[in-house]
Amino acid sequence: MQQAQQAGLEGMQPQDFDRVLTSMCTEPHPAAREAAERFLATNPGDPGTYQTVAELEERAVELLGAVTGLDDPAGYVTSGGTEANIQAVRIARNRADTNDPNVVAPKSAHFSFRKAAELLGVELRTAPTADHRADVDAMNELVDEDTVALVGVAGSTEYGVVDPIPAIAELANDADALCHVDAAWGGFYLPFTDFEWHFGHADIDTLTIDPHKVGQAAVPSGGLVARSEEVFDPLAIDTPYLETTSQVTLTGTRSGAGVASAVAAMEALWPEGYREQYRRSMDNAEWLADQLRARGHDVFGPVLPLVTADLSVPMTDELRGRGWRVSKTGSGEMRIVCMPHVTRSMLRSFVADLDWY
Amino acid sequence: MQQAQQAGLEGMQPQDFDRVLTSMCTEPHPAAREAAERFLATNPGDPGTYQTVAELEERAVELLGAVTGLDDPAGYVTSGGTEANIQAVRIARNRADTNDPNVVAPKSAHFSFRKAAELLGVELRTAPTADHRADVDAMNELVDEDTVALVGVAGSTEYGVVDPIPAIAELANDADALCHVDAAWGGFYLPFTDFEWHFGHADIDTLTIDPHKVGQAAVPSGGLVARSEEVFDPLAIDTPYLETTSQVTLTGTRSGAGVASAVAAMEALWPEGYREQYRRSMDNAEWLADQLRARGHDVFGPVLPLVTADLSVPMTDELRGRGWRVSKTGSGEMRIVCMPHVTRSMLRSFVADLDWY
Repeated sequence: MQQAQQAGLEGMQPQDFDRVLTSMCTEPHPAAREAAERFLATNPGDPGTYQTVAELEERAVELLGAVTGLDDPAGYVTSGGTEANIQAVRIARNRADTNDPNVVAPKSAHFSFRKAAELLGVELRTAPTADHRADVDAMNELVDEDTVALVGVAGSTEYGVVDPIPAIAELANDADALCHVDAAWGGFYLPFTDFEWHFGHADIDTLTIDPHKVGQAAVPSGGLVARSEEVFDPLAIDTPYLETTSQVTLTGTRSGAGVASAVAAMEALWPEGYREQYRRSMDNAEWLADQLRARGHDVFGPVLPLVTADLSVPMTDELRGRGWRVSKTGSGEMRIVCMPHVTRSMLRSFVADLDWY
Repeated sequence: MQQAQQAGLEGMQPQDFDRVLTSMCTEPHPAAREAAERFLATNPGDPGTYQTVAELEERAVELLGAVTGLDDPAGYVTSGGTEANIQAVRIARNRADTNDPNVVAPKSAHFSFRKAAELLGVELRTAPTADHRADVDAMNELVDEDTVALVGVAGSTEYGVVDPIPAIAELANDADALCHVDAAWGGFYLPFTDFEWHFGHADIDTLTIDPHKVGQAAVPSGGLVARSEEVFDPLAIDTPYLETTSQVTLTGTRSGAGVASAVAAMEALWPEGYREQYRRSMDNAEWLADQLRARGHDVFGPVLPLVTADLSVPMTDELRGRGWRVSKTGSGEMRIVCMPHVTRSMLRSFVADLDWY
């Protein structure tokens, strides 16, 4: 019991971010933190009772629409990208007329699609990629009459690449399947690039974009955006005892802190603050890639502010021993995510530690 | 655009709780609020990177074990009761050897079980209740060789009743099915009653108990507790790029604020603070039931601190017009939940408004 109490909250502090190079979450923007604290005791899952935060959620969706090229967006603030991806696959499964549904995605798709497939009883078919990017011909070969959705990734988790979304959307259209884009991480960098990735560029149905990643909101603040309200109809579950009568979300009680902080972050940063952040992060990623190449490493990226390099496993362990939070891709490359909290001086210090080794 | 900005965060305040009689969430305990604010920028879904909050989650599960009669509990802090209930059904489905799984529950079970069934492709069979409580014989009639789980409710959402958990656990045992108890709301009241509802009282496998309800933690802080780690094996999904290698949770990124605030609330309140809260809330519920009966209403409860009464629909609308957040059961009775924020003076004011009408 004594030992248990020593493991309790007293004196424990969250990690600081000054050596975190692996997370796709970041320090929330000060306005987002303030809003999260203010709305900590609200539940947008019960909009009849918690009306203010329900209104804020409408505002969050409107702002997400502005970021993703939709004038009249539908959607909601999810617990994160995983919920949004699960829900997209669930919509596709529920609206399709097959007993043996499959979803076609590039093998670079996030592991939440494997989770979604397992959960929902849907087959996940993953196509090989070319230079880590979706290969539309390879995806096409996997499509058949039981295909209910095609997935494109706009800012992949491991390499930060952007799939050819318009071509994937065409494939989905031809197959009469839902087209879902996972821009969970990339969504707040991509508006400042030339990539075609959103509702304004292609005929997509649903899109994941997480304010609590590059959007600089507080966790939990994911986003699922859809072209219209009707997209959510296949998810409605009756809610007998609430003041409202049905619910389309995956979770029930939800975080008002996440909703309020998403609005606060986007109101503070869209678009100019996010544009500046993109430039800073991309400059940092390019600097890092140059430094690593100059040291003879094989480097991929940055396409978006994310770099991978062939640093050896013992080196990874050594860096972890020095407090760096680094991780590896499935192929074993070291992966460094240039989030807003990752500064040039942090990267200088990281490269200095590499040189020491 | 101008109108849109007016709907933004500027000047918007969360509701206060002084007329909320319907929510099963409440004002967080001050220590829970402080901890949530401190751990806002952490992600227990990535335990390699966010180690402190991962340790705190172990402490949270240990405390949940103390509340639910388990010395060596397994589990995690979920986004809420819905996730915990979905996960219990998912465990049951995945470990069973049938292509046509069903779950047997009393019709009083929370709507999240309908959501789970729809999501997971499991048939939900609901049995009639007797005086709103699970009827074990009626449940038994629905059990067959494809039954993968039986559900008991310990503190039902609509009437606050407690099912005969030991008898349901026996039924589950006989059917070789998982036994899940939903104590999402009741779990922090029940330790101070004579009910038999937890791991120490019956051979149950999994249990939902939400710190962010009566436990007085901040949203999102639900709880799924299991008898052993192995229970979670059927949920593991590989996670290539994280510092850890697999994930059993439904969501990916998770809220460190929820985890830290669960620990803070339970360290502050378990057991004496919760005992006092139970007494206060139960006294209030009994007082309200007496007042309503004295006015000629047909009242059910309180079994736990929740009262329903046959107040007419126009009266409900009238009360809402006066700012009261009230809701109805599926059968149309008004339902008043005596959460920690519901004080005697609040109820006096509510009854006075009833009299005025």
